[in-house]
Amino acid sequence: MSSNRSPILLTPGPLTTSDRTRNAMLRDWGSWDGDFNKITARIRERVLDIVHGKGTHECVPMQGSGTFSVEAAIGTLVPRDGHVLVPSNGAYCQRLARICRVLGRKVTTIDYTEDRQVQPADVERALAADPGITHVAVVHCETGAGVLNPLHEIALVAARHGRGLIIDAMSSFGAIEIDARKTPFDAVIAASGKCLEGVPGMGFVVARRSTLEKCEGNCHSLAMDLYDQWVYMEKTTQWRFTPPTHVVAALDEAITQYIEEGGLAARGGRYARNCDTLIEGLAALGLRSFLEPSIQAPIIITFHAPDDANYDFKTFYQEVKKRGYILYPGKLTQVETFRVGCMGHFGEAGIPGAVAAIGETLKAMGIRHVGAPMPA
Amino acid sequence: MSSNRSPILLTPGPLTTSDRTRNAMLRDWGSWDGDFNKITARIRERVLDIVHGKGTHECVPMQGSGTFSVEAAIGTLVPRDGHVLVPSNGAYCQRLARICRVLGRKVTTIDYTEDRQVQPADVERALAADPGITHVAVVHCETGAGVLNPLHEIALVAARHGRGLIIDAMSSFGAIEIDARKTPFDAVIAASGKCLEGVPGMGFVVARRSTLEKCEGNCHSLAMDLYDQWVYMEKTTQWRFTPPTHVVAALDEAITQYIEEGGLAARGGRYARNCDTLIEGLAALGLRSFLEPSIQAPIIITFHAPDDANYDFKTFYQEVKKRGYILYPGKLTQVETFRVGCMGHFGEAGIPGAVAAIGETLKAMGIRHVGAPMPA
Repeated sequence: MSSNRSPILLTPGPLTTSDRTRNAMLRDWGSWDGDFNKITARIRERVLDIVHGKGTHECVPMQGSGTFSVEAAIGTLVPRDGHVLVPSNGAYCQRLARICRVLGRKVTTIDYTEDRQVQPADVERALAADPGITHVAVVHCETGAGVLNPLHEIALVAARHGRGLIIDAMSSFGAIEIDARKTPFDAVIAASGKCLEGVPGMGFVVARRSTLEKCEGNCHSLAMDLYDQWVYMEKTTQWRFTPPTHVVAALDEAITQYIEEGGLAARGGRYARNCDTLIEGLAALGLRSFLEPSIQAPIIITFHAPDDANYDFKTFYQEVKKRGYILYPGKLTQVETFRVGCMGHFGEAGIPGAVAAIGETLKAMGIRHVGAPMPA
Repeated sequence: MSSNRSPILLTPGPLTTSDRTRNAMLRDWGSWDGDFNKITARIRERVLDIVHGKGTHECVPMQGSGTFSVEAAIGTLVPRDGHVLVPSNGAYCQRLARICRVLGRKVTTIDYTEDRQVQPADVERALAADPGITHVAVVHCETGAGVLNPLHEIALVAARHGRGLIIDAMSSFGAIEIDARKTPFDAVIAASGKCLEGVPGMGFVVARRSTLEKCEGNCHSLAMDLYDQWVYMEKTTQWRFTPPTHVVAALDEAITQYIEEGGLAARGGRYARNCDTLIEGLAALGLRSFLEPSIQAPIIITFHAPDDANYDFKTFYQEVKKRGYILYPGKLTQVETFRVGCMGHFGEAGIPGAVAAIGETLKAMGIRHVGAPMPA
């Protein structure tokens, strides 16, 4: 079956997936059955390979959205008397800090505006000033505005100071390099429905084994206890509680296609081309991207809304949707913006098609071309 | 596409679902999009209808397996200084108690053997003896052995004593009546992949609105905060964090078929016929069910393993699977058993087919007929 009739999703996720990935959901699996457990094992192994974590790290899948995995990682890996430093340049950094607070972990933030990268030197200073900080928790690609944070440099700073590092790599995992052999980390967290192009419904944490081994009884939650999930899975090959079997099967199939495509270099390359085409295309329509190109991750792009009385996001969204593309609202507090994602299975024609749809929409809404006169 | 080649799942879930339900997963949905949010709203409304909770209760969906929803209900609805009474006759009651302990809620259990129903009179005595108990948490159908607990009577006892009631109705919701107009409760919890015959990946809590309204800031978790999930959903029509869109669409389609079939009476009736056919069929093969018929829920049936040196569960399981049916191991500690589920979309021929497959397997394994000579 084809999804041709449904709009293409240019959002931070859920994404447009391939027919092969969706078709993998057409079978029911017993969660206790060996055939299904082989799928789980294969996902764990191949996810670990993506970050070159074999031998040092373990992939522990977790039910729920990516945020559930983030909470599971914080709750399991940060001791109850731990202290987390969160360098924060957007909504997902703020969510990390909020999770720490709800879980009763002490948290300190370094606050940046949404158009700036986290500065490793600031992290360095904060760690030097406060030996009580046990962990740094960082968002790799801050989906709020779309900033790529300098993960490798931050990781080296944390390692030099002997602090743990927890990485929310939700929007980067599989497309932007994270190499456990070079970049020291305790945990990298991502989810099924992002750059691996599976369907949403599960996340996973790639955790350093020597760290995980020490975390028995630490978690605030039964369902989200990564240590328990890991130990049980190692012992039985099964998930502790009912897995989302169809979502798991779809992720497995999506990873197969990821490898066939050429892995991280190919996936990241495709998104980078999407990003360039999008920014150039919308620039020609007079729409400016929000971030400096040097700190823009090729994942999701924030654009300034047209400065025109005829513009409102709801109409814009509906008109673009009618033309076959689903955009995303902005998440910035100070500036009116909208976002367009570069992830998903929609072929090379997807972004040019979206640019054309946006152009037609601006014309239909009577929005004046900002940079140059609107083509007739 | 048809699932004819995959084995029929006779387990406590995931279950065999219909082609229509699985086909509903062939489309990608934007989680921010109005079309998707209509699906969420329709599920919430129709789930509420099943327990006649309109006007008094709210349906709050939650990502993850059913256990995530159970933990969300305990964590959100029981105050941090609350005290939960768990009458316990099996593994899922023990899990309820364990959740309370992990979440730091005081818990008292009333312990029964796995072949007995919870006794409302014992609950009555426990509540009378300890006014500090704030909540009763009960499992409606204890899937460990398959016992149906007397929910209505327990609910009346809890109400008479002015205590809250939280019901784990994972394996009964939609097939065994729970009527909010007659049976007072604070929360009923179930999941997508059980009697509603959706695919696994989400749960839901039907919570009394006046209770839920008082629960702001109570939850131990950000991701599993039912209050936050509810308030956000009411305000935005969206899920707080990425929903498992395909699982949600499948549940919506499954509920449509549930209504078409005739709702609770029809679904429960079909399972009861499956249960009778199964118990009679296996009895004719000399296999005894574990529970007294009067306390057996028509959901999942525990059978004594054949008392024969040639029997081992792994071979039995594999041989029955070769013949097209997936069974489930027993979960009892004292007696060797196996379980067979009555739930799922497999038509009237499913159970007789499973009985035949089990009969052939016993013969192939050289297992002597227990009750009478094995037919040649």
